[in-house]
Amino acid sequence: MGTEFDIRNFLKERKRLVDDAIKKYFSDANPFFEVMYYSTEGGKRIRPILAITSYEANRGTDFEHILPIACGLELIHTYSLIHDDLPSMDNDDFRRGKASAHKRFGEARAILSGDGLFAYAFELFTYAKGADEDKIAVIKAVSEAIGPKGVVYGQTLDIKEYNRPDPRILRSIHLNKTAKFIAVSIQVGAIMARASSRIINELYKAGLLMGMLFQYTDDILDVIGEKECLGKTPGKDKDAGKLTAPSVYGLDGARFRARRYAEMAKSRFTSFGKEFEIFNHITDFILKRTY
Amino acid sequence: MGTEFDIRNFLKERKRLVDDAIKKYFSDANPFFEVMYYSTEGGKRIRPILAITSYEANRGTDFEHILPIACGLELIHTYSLIHDDLPSMDNDDFRRGKASAHKRFGEARAILSGDGLFAYAFELFTYAKGADEDKIAVIKAVSEAIGPKGVVYGQTLDIKEYNRPDPRILRSIHLNKTAKFIAVSIQVGAIMARASSRIINELYKAGLLMGMLFQYTDDILDVIGEKECLGKTPGKDKDAGKLTAPSVYGLDGARFRARRYAEMAKSRFTSFGKEFEIFNHITDFILKRTY
Repeated sequence: MGTEFDIRNFLKERKRLVDDAIKKYFSDANPFFEVMYYSTEGGKRIRPILAITSYEANRGTDFEHILPIACGLELIHTYSLIHDDLPSMDNDDFRRGKASAHKRFGEARAILSGDGLFAYAFELFTYAKGADEDKIAVIKAVSEAIGPKGVVYGQTLDIKEYNRPDPRILRSIHLNKTAKFIAVSIQVGAIMARASSRIINELYKAGLLMGMLFQYTDDILDVIGEKECLGKTPGKDKDAGKLTAPSVYGLDGARFRARRYAEMAKSRFTSFGKEFEIFNHITDFILKRTY
Repeated sequence: MGTEFDIRNFLKERKRLVDDAIKKYFSDANPFFEVMYYSTEGGKRIRPILAITSYEANRGTDFEHILPIACGLELIHTYSLIHDDLPSMDNDDFRRGKASAHKRFGEARAILSGDGLFAYAFELFTYAKGADEDKIAVIKAVSEAIGPKGVVYGQTLDIKEYNRPDPRILRSIHLNKTAKFIAVSIQVGAIMARASSRIINELYKAGLLMGMLFQYTDDILDVIGEKECLGKTPGKDKDAGKLTAPSVYGLDGARFRARRYAEMAKSRFTSFGKEFEIFNHITDFILKRTY
């Protein structure tokens, strides 16, 4: 894996795996599956790709051990976007390049489609091949990362208004809303590949750094990004009192800190050995992303 | 267990177990846990009581195998009530004898507190003592019962308007919205007590009948019940086009069918032997309930 490595192609291949699997899981006669599927389409599939990549880096060989879990992570991410876009939350009409769920189906069915994706994700977790012990470890780690000690808590902090740019709160928002979920996505790949608990824990820590980087670039793109590239409305974070990396550190300060998170993440991934080099490529990809 | 059996006391004792355990699970420093806990207070705890009772009837002896799961069921039920009460859904300001979550905390935090309870429920499932194989079976059964093939699907049918009283759709609403969740609550007790797969399946079927009964009495109480007893606003189902047991069968027809579901449920429970007689008492209690 030299400088020639084509990261875009690597991501594209794994994205196709995820897209195909999700499509399969939604080929149900129940008409409500179509409503849920609508919002899953068009995602970058970052979290499932991280799970699969980690599984491969940890010498996992049977995708049936990781693919249902990877897809479950994407459904959970999708549910959080649907609820986040609601009028009482961020009130965003545009997501993944099309009308957001509540614009397309109305608020009630949007909320329910999020709830349905949430439940279905946990059902998918149980579909994975492999030891029940590993699946329970995955369910424990994921439910912690996405619940009131993770994503949901981060969201409650994120929707508040702040009268001063508090870096401590910003860090807590980023850590809870984004970094823990990114970190756990990498972690579950290691769990399902039966890596040592040392590796499982260390990968989580490296994943937190990648997750912080991810949210920094998200905040930066909200300022400088184009709607067509992002597939969502940029400039949403300008609302008075919203804490973001640029609002706390300025655009240059946010970029500087993003680069630093990328360096710290890569230094950790490098320490795990050659199989994990791919995570350095993904880290650089996130640092430079335009969508 | 003769005619003297005090079902109210039986339910009260198990309710206390559940109330205490839930309180313990919410003694976290994180202030958002208080917001979530608010909505869990005041419930009848029917689903966790059914899980515990089934565990006991199936000769389970260590409550640590079932209590975290029983509490998780209650958190899931609570999340569904919070989302169901939202302005874009049933728009109910009153629940469990106090202001509903969105009236108390605003819509955004209400939605998030539901999401948080949902995630935390699955975390609690992993806390149960016992074999990982059993816990995975529980998570599979519960996620199916509450997701797009169960509760959430029932809700999507329930919020629609119908221009004629269609008994087939009413049955599908009751089955998906209520009966499957009640049935799975009984089923998980049997799973965690390591009952035979025959008993696990048969109890599920009996539970469906009890669940249908439960929703019939719910629909009837919405017509004849008192706000003080119900802890929620009666008469909500009168909205034009809402399908309920009385709107389809009339009040007397609904009562007749409720009694029939009770008889069918009891006949099944009786066939399982003396340990399951308690379910007949619970069935009668549900038939006669006033709240």
